[in-house]
Amino acid sequence: MSALPVTEIVEDAAAALAQVRNARPRIHAIMNTVTQKLVADGLSALGTIPSMTVSEDEIAGFVMKADALAVNLGTLDASRRAAIATALAAAQSRSLPWVLDPAHCDYSPPRALFAQELLASRPAVLRANEAEHQLLDVPAGIVSVRTGQTDHVASAGRVLVVENGHEWTAIVTGTGCLSGALIAAFLAVETDPFTAAIAAMLAVGIAAELAAPQAKGPGSFEPCFLDALAALTPDDLLQHARIRHEQD
Amino acid sequence: MSALPVTEIVEDAAAALAQVRNARPRIHAIMNTVTQKLVADGLSALGTIPSMTVSEDEIAGFVMKADALAVNLGTLDASRRAAIATALAAAQSRSLPWVLDPAHCDYSPPRALFAQELLASRPAVLRANEAEHQLLDVPAGIVSVRTGQTDHVASAGRVLVVENGHEWTAIVTGTGCLSGALIAAFLAVETDPFTAAIAAMLAVGIAAELAAPQAKGPGSFEPCFLDALAALTPDDLLQHARIRHEQD
Amino acid sequence: MSALPVTEIVEDAAAALAQVRNARPRIHAIMNTVTQKLVADGLSALGTIPSMTVSEDEIAGFVMKADALAVNLGTLDASRRAAIATALAAAQSRSLPWVLDPAHCDYSPPRALFAQELLASRPAVLRANEAEHQLLDVPAGIVSVRTGQTDHVASAGRVLVVENGHEWTAIVTGTGCLSGALIAAFLAVETDPFTAAIAAMLAVGIAAELAAPQAKGPGSFEPCFLDALAALTPDDLLQHARIRHEQD
Repeated sequence: MSALPVTEIVEDAAAALAQVRNARPRIHAIMNTVTQKLVADGLSALGTIPSMTVSEDEIAGFVMKADALAVNLGTLDASRRAAIATALAAAQSRSLPWVLDPAHCDYSPPRALFAQELLASRPAVLRANEAEHQLLDVPAGIVSVRTGQTDHVASAGRVLVVENGHEWTAIVTGTGCLSGALIAAFLAVETDPFTAAIAAMLAVGIAAELAAPQAKGPGSFEPCFLDALAALTPDDLLQHARIRHEQD
Repeated sequence: MSALPVTEIVEDAAAALAQVRNARPRIHAIMNTVTQKLVADGLSALGTIPSMTVSEDEIAGFVMKADALAVNLGTLDASRRAAIATALAAAQSRSLPWVLDPAHCDYSPPRALFAQELLASRPAVLRANEAEHQLLDVPAGIVSVRTGQTDHVASAGRVLVVENGHEWTAIVTGTGCLSGALIAAFLAVETDPFTAAIAAMLAVGIAAELAAPQAKGPGSFEPCFLDALAALTPDDLLQHARIRHEQD
Repeated sequence: MSALPVTEIVEDAAAALAQVRNARPRIHAIMNTVTQKLVADGLSALGTIPSMTVSEDEIAGFVMKADALAVNLGTLDASRRAAIATALAAAQSRSLPWVLDPAHCDYSPPRALFAQELLASRPAVLRANEAEHQLLDVPAGIVSVRTGQTDHVASAGRVLVVENGHEWTAIVTGTGCLSGALIAAFLAVETDPFTAAIAAMLAVGIAAELAAPQAKGPGSFEPCFLDALAALTPDDLLQHARIRHEQD
């Protein structure tokens, strides 16, 4: 397989970043209570306008104003389940793209079951780590992102590996949740979910690489990472992307 | 209109800051789940003692120990509505001053309606952005703060414009919520709510201006801003205030 | 009383830190909504794997995967009370060690009552500040940590005073909550809860001392503190511990 398709997808990802900066889409993120602030800051740094309410009687109004939706299952409870159902109904009435992040579903059988049910509602993208992925059966047509030391983005038999990133990312709570939310940010402007997922993984990984030399440890890495995300340009993606086909 | 009243109000604001530092008031802040940590850190940096529970069976006890109350409507739900009612009853039994921040009420008609109802319970100050303000009818006697690129503080026909601030403030999630909570901090020590509101807007805006040169982007701006707020002196307010009458 | 026992306990604490780094225990922390992110980051920086759900139908699954449990009573409500009961039942079925932090129970009589009831379920360690401690009657056999300008760790008539620390710690919201969670981290690897409590207090106090010269105020202190916690070595504990018998 030639290198050309990879170059093209990086160019498409760079173009999607430029579109996010220009369009300033609204992203509604149903986010666990631990990481809400980091995810909101990261969405703002990328140039989007985040909202996060999970109130059952208000969430439909927020989703109707949003350009994409992120559903993270961390700190799930009965009230969040109901809010997710309401949010998805609103999203589907508008054909709004959404991403599913079944955070920590490997700790909790009922959460894994709920994640599997949500996959039937057809998110554009599923983002999960290795342990979470193993529990889920992903229907055809959903782009699958498996994050880890490298990130694997799969769709219809095509698998790309994004090698950008930095080890401190794993120590900062919520960077995985943020990568899910950033997929929603790119889904808001890019109709191909495979490209949107690649763009988000590149943005997180390259911002991390640019931030790490500014930091002295995982604590100072977090603000430096947000600085880098805010400053990230389409040209940074073109310059720094390290991406390959899985079988290369 | 002469410049003298503006000079005097800056002097009053500086005196109020000195009072907060000395008195260390307790502020109970009903705060959305996204920004609780930043708001608590900002309240501590200013020299107050924050608390944030929204438990219906405990909140009255916290309000009875507080010197002022902040009510932020972000991530509102049925349980928070009930907690707000209980908190306001406790506050009114002690004539405790409070500030209302109808966060994101422009996204949600029921939230805007609730905000309008709360205005009938007479907060000392309403803090809202332009879009939120447009939906609300502010009764006479309530000081109105409209935040944006500049902040407009209005009371009984008098409007002052605070021009201090920095663009990164808008990218850090929760700085608006924090400015509402800091109004409560000043209400705890200053009987004139107009002065208290001006003092809070000056504190946020000047701390932001002093912080920005220390930062490399919105991520590192947040800790630098908290450093600046913790170090802010009454003299900083006198030196750096940029404030004018609206009609100047 | 000779200095030898103090030297030995510092050596034991240093060994416990080495064990945490190697074992990477899972810590489930029932944490108030304000400080969840800082506590998760601090637990990760120390080398543990944190989880934080409080959902009643999921928490048992998380506790069954955990190596120790932290129960913090901040932002308590009916749903958290129920989750705590479920979590403690799961913990007791596995003889899992746990730590109780009755945060802010001095503000709320029902919370103080609940804390007293929980003490009957025999946490290995109670961590509380002076005002909280005064309201509680600690049964024999529970290690008691009283935090403040210095930290007092008491068990069976033996009281050690940890003098490490920095004043900025008190301005950063959640460092107290984090110290409770870090006690759980050490309980996961160290069978003597007195040693575990000492190790946690030394880790927090020494990391704070190493971080402060890197920071410019309480805002920048927080990321520097997390950096220091991530870099902290057993040798740092041996080198920097300032600890004495209360009666010395």
